[in-house]
Amino acid sequence: MPIPAAEVVAASERIRGLVRRTPVVPVDVCGLRLYLKCENLQDGGSFKLRGATNVIRTLSPEALGRGVMAYSSGNHAAGVALAAQRAGAKARVVMPHDAPKVKVDNTASFGAEIVSYNRFTEDREAICQALAAETGAAIVPPFDHPMTIAGQGTAAMELLEEAPELDALIAPLGGGGLMAGTCLIARHMRPSLRLFGGEPALGNDTYLSIQAGERVEIAPPDTIADGLRSFAPGKLTFPVMKENLEAVVLVTEDEIRAAVRWLATKAHLVVEPSGAVPVAAILHGKLPREVRNIGVIVSGGNIEPSQLAEILA
Amino acid sequence: MPIPAAEVVAASERIRGLVRRTPVVPVDVCGLRLYLKCENLQDGGSFKLRGATNVIRTLSPEALGRGVMAYSSGNHAAGVALAAQRAGAKARVVMPHDAPKVKVDNTASFGAEIVSYNRFTEDREAICQALAAETGAAIVPPFDHPMTIAGQGTAAMELLEEAPELDALIAPLGGGGLMAGTCLIARHMRPSLRLFGGEPALGNDTYLSIQAGERVEIAPPDTIADGLRSFAPGKLTFPVMKENLEAVVLVTEDEIRAAVRWLATKAHLVVEPSGAVPVAAILHGKLPREVRNIGVIVSGGNIEPSQLAEILA
Repeated sequence: MPIPAAEVVAASERIRGLVRRTPVVPVDVCGLRLYLKCENLQDGGSFKLRGATNVIRTLSPEALGRGVMAYSSGNHAAGVALAAQRAGAKARVVMPHDAPKVKVDNTASFGAEIVSYNRFTEDREAICQALAAETGAAIVPPFDHPMTIAGQGTAAMELLEEAPELDALIAPLGGGGLMAGTCLIARHMRPSLRLFGGEPALGNDTYLSIQAGERVEIAPPDTIADGLRSFAPGKLTFPVMKENLEAVVLVTEDEIRAAVRWLATKAHLVVEPSGAVPVAAILHGKLPREVRNIGVIVSGGNIEPSQLAEILA
Repeated sequence: MPIPAAEVVAASERIRGLVRRTPVVPVDVCGLRLYLKCENLQDGGSFKLRGATNVIRTLSPEALGRGVMAYSSGNHAAGVALAAQRAGAKARVVMPHDAPKVKVDNTASFGAEIVSYNRFTEDREAICQALAAETGAAIVPPFDHPMTIAGQGTAAMELLEEAPELDALIAPLGGGGLMAGTCLIARHMRPSLRLFGGEPALGNDTYLSIQAGERVEIAPPDTIADGLRSFAPGKLTFPVMKENLEAVVLVTEDEIRAAVRWLATKAHLVVEPSGAVPVAAILHGKLPREVRNIGVIVSGGNIEPSQLAEILA
């Protein structure tokens, strides 16, 4: 069941005015020019508002009246909470017990009810579905849904509208919603563009899956890139990524920290570890040499102040 | 000798393509909407590139061949260095011995020669003029020159082009180049706009000068807002500010730190203390209550990583 790129274009119309068109910031480094699509400056602090808004705005008024639900490590929770608030719907989100406090507070600030679970011992999908069954609330899937994927693809669509001559485009790899949406619209708008995914070496589920030619599940990863702690790529996102990605580029925890530091001190942008993964790959020379003009989806900025302080100190 | 607003418009034409058009980021806080004009994302990390480029691009090829000079606490140095590099001219800058390392490194990275002096015991203008006399280099004034003022005004011009219905506009107060340029173009484009200056209480030279009705000189100030350590407003900038500012708003050092922290954690922008002064004034309720939509010139982002870490910790 392939997802047509037209779904991304439709999403961009559906979410217009409900989601911020974030700036594209060009930065030069080591003879390369990066075009940073600053989703850290998105409302709610990440690209997740795009997919959540695209899903929620397709619900009927009756469905909206029963509220929405989500399970999330943090940014999807905030995205769903804010999208629901803007649509006048109640939101309840299931979040891991060790989610960054900044993300829990952010989600709560948009009026959502938080349900906590242990991500090492409990199944968030099961918890979420049981609660949804009680209330009739609609679940907003974090990545493996055509409307979620299409919504996330609108960030790359805006970037491609503004950045002139890109050789390549790179985004972080969690469950693959952002990356798959990016692949779909990029292949449509610039068929020859080279597409890369950045993934923490400690959470290399998509890398292993592409190597194996099928979805591989890993143990709960313990990377500081808390938004990329997926066990496996999605059923829908994986084939899109497998078909379109030239490579999955792995980065170490230290490389992620260095990228967070570089973004803060050189680009003057606060970016969370997950959002800094693609820049980590670029700064550490992991893309092919001939790639010079690179579009980068900087996916979010919700980092604990204490963690950022530690990285900068 | 009043400076016509048309000089700002002319500057915007002169510097087009040589200076980045920085994004305007809207942020909601406490029922207010701020429109942050992000000069921390400017090339060189501050608005200073604007004035420096405007001055340097009026020099003859012969003058450019003799190079340019500047004295600066940091950001003007980097602005002149980068503007000179882009014009193919040599730059030499006189910087205080205690200028932030990040600013000295930044300036040197654009190929400028650095001359150090003690800001408590030596006169930077005299040093700069003696060196200029030797080499015939043109001095690029940090604030008290019509071309500098006009160049700095282009940031507010771009903001006013993009932000729809502002009640007020606020910028930081150092020597007054940015504020005077802001006043000139704002009064021209939106005659009824309310204009405010933000100043550290520890470096209140413009506040005292406006109280006194004439330029007052203070002892070398010791505020963390290192870009706003002016002794007195300029001869040219003072009358413009006196005529157009509704008020100079003073902020404490702690209020500045809180604003740097808020900008990093809530707006995901790295802003230096000087650049955070207007936001400090807003967050601490120092503007009139009825002001709701506020344009803010966020002047720069060159903060020591260790200082930012300390503020975030």
